[in-house]
Amino acid sequence: MTDTAPYTPPKVWTWDHASGGQFANINRPIAGPTHEKTLPVGKHPLQLYSLATPNGVKVTIMLEELLSLGHTGAEYDAWLINIREGEQFSSGYVEINPNSKIPVMVDHSTETPTRVFESGSILLYLAEKFGAFLPKDHHKRTETLNWLFWQMGSAPYLGGGFGHFYAYAPEKWQYPIDRFAMETKRQLDVLDRNLADRQYMAGDEYSIADMAIFAWYGALAKGWLYDAGEFLSVHEYKNVLRWADMLLERKAVQRGRMVNRSWGEPSEQLRERHDASDFENKTQDKMQET
Amino acid sequence: MTDTAPYTPPKVWTWDHASGGQFANINRPIAGPTHEKTLPVGKHPLQLYSLATPNGVKVTIMLEELLSLGHTGAEYDAWLINIREGEQFSSGYVEINPNSKIPVMVDHSTETPTRVFESGSILLYLAEKFGAFLPKDHHKRTETLNWLFWQMGSAPYLGGGFGHFYAYAPEKWQYPIDRFAMETKRQLDVLDRNLADRQYMAGDEYSIADMAIFAWYGALAKGWLYDAGEFLSVHEYKNVLRWADMLLERKAVQRGRMVNRSWGEPSEQLRERHDASDFENKTQDKMQET
Repeated sequence: MTDTAPYTPPKVWTWDHASGGQFANINRPIAGPTHEKTLPVGKHPLQLYSLATPNGVKVTIMLEELLSLGHTGAEYDAWLINIREGEQFSSGYVEINPNSKIPVMVDHSTETPTRVFESGSILLYLAEKFGAFLPKDHHKRTETLNWLFWQMGSAPYLGGGFGHFYAYAPEKWQYPIDRFAMETKRQLDVLDRNLADRQYMAGDEYSIADMAIFAWYGALAKGWLYDAGEFLSVHEYKNVLRWADMLLERKAVQRGRMVNRSWGEPSEQLRERHDASDFENKTQDKMQET
Repeated sequence: MTDTAPYTPPKVWTWDHASGGQFANINRPIAGPTHEKTLPVGKHPLQLYSLATPNGVKVTIMLEELLSLGHTGAEYDAWLINIREGEQFSSGYVEINPNSKIPVMVDHSTETPTRVFESGSILLYLAEKFGAFLPKDHHKRTETLNWLFWQMGSAPYLGGGFGHFYAYAPEKWQYPIDRFAMETKRQLDVLDRNLADRQYMAGDEYSIADMAIFAWYGALAKGWLYDAGEFLSVHEYKNVLRWADMLLERKAVQRGRMVNRSWGEPSEQLRERHDASDFENKTQDKMQET
């Protein structure tokens, strides 16, 4: 594209395969599989196919939290999906997630396997299956779901909007960066005000709403996303930071963040997870490194 | 902004009050109320504060469907929120929806009123309260929630992405239009493939997933959103169109689309809805018009 020439959209949009910036090779205007391949299936009831982006981390935190409560039915195999290589477009993947995004989970403990796609749907599914991290009280349950849905509808402005134009687009354009920076800061302020007099997003109970929001906005407030901490003045959101630091002290959160991670420090990557002992082995690696 | 000059983002983003294109006056980088005002409360158990945008229409379709099934507990007052005038920033509104977006609902039938915000959360709340439009069967229920969450995470690319840059931004820029047109077409194709061998989004039962997706993607396929039917070649998505036309035959869908509408033909606007007879009165208006 050129941004010096005036632009008049054509009558009918057509696909220019060269456009798209970073990730151009995996963004398409059509759905469906690009190649035939079946997915691996491990020994545990729950099979997760994912990557340690914020949407992936939400679910691995939840699974580790369930295991830490003693729900052995939440044992899982976590398989790495390399989205830059287009593994989300395999026939096996599309069959369980027609949207070709990570994460997706299959529950093999039901009479026939149950496919669960969209990270928010997976969180709700697990919360209901194990009766955990979703309050029973009517008001608290409703408030938890309010904030879970808030996260699902808000994060695209952070990730697909701000993150894309600030960090990934082929050039920097002021208008989209301004637009999405403003909305991202508004969202941080929504959270900060909510946490001013609450310990957790939905009140006094830790819930799936915290996990979902932490994965995106906790990471953002900590300066981990898009190298944008200074640009967005994240230090202003003191309540979000207090809450994020509190969650980061949880062992399940620390573990969940490592699963299906394929970048960063080797000791913080657990590219695949098939057993709780996988974490202990990583801890030994880390001790040897330091 | 100028898009001829190279742009280097500043170290720290600051708010330029003049930027933002259409809706610039209601987009802010901060949350919270701008003025003191309480909300009206009518006689019915459910109080809805909304506008007939796709997110608003989802909920009014659901309420009308519930009433058509005979659930008198779903009687509601629908109050118009003029978002261009900033009514979503009143103290009363922010108290029930800290995110200042439409729609928001308050259930006064519970021991203390229950606030429900985010359209997906409202749909799920109503489905569970009345035991309707959310299948009981494990697989079907899961699939319904998969698609409900899919809609919540996908439509921001259609509305806040494609719609904004194609229809509302102060200038046309090719890169964001291409980016979001491609994603919007991909989403339409995801739906079209799903509906190739299904009557409804989650299978053979009409559900809240259909209502949520119809409000956005049904309207888009019918060419009603952003005047973009030709640009996106919506006629290609034949299964989406078949399904949308099927839903449009439902009286509750027709009614739901009218509620809190403040634009278009006067006979199709029911700016506020306080009683089922409000629709019959509109029908008389329409007969007099024609």
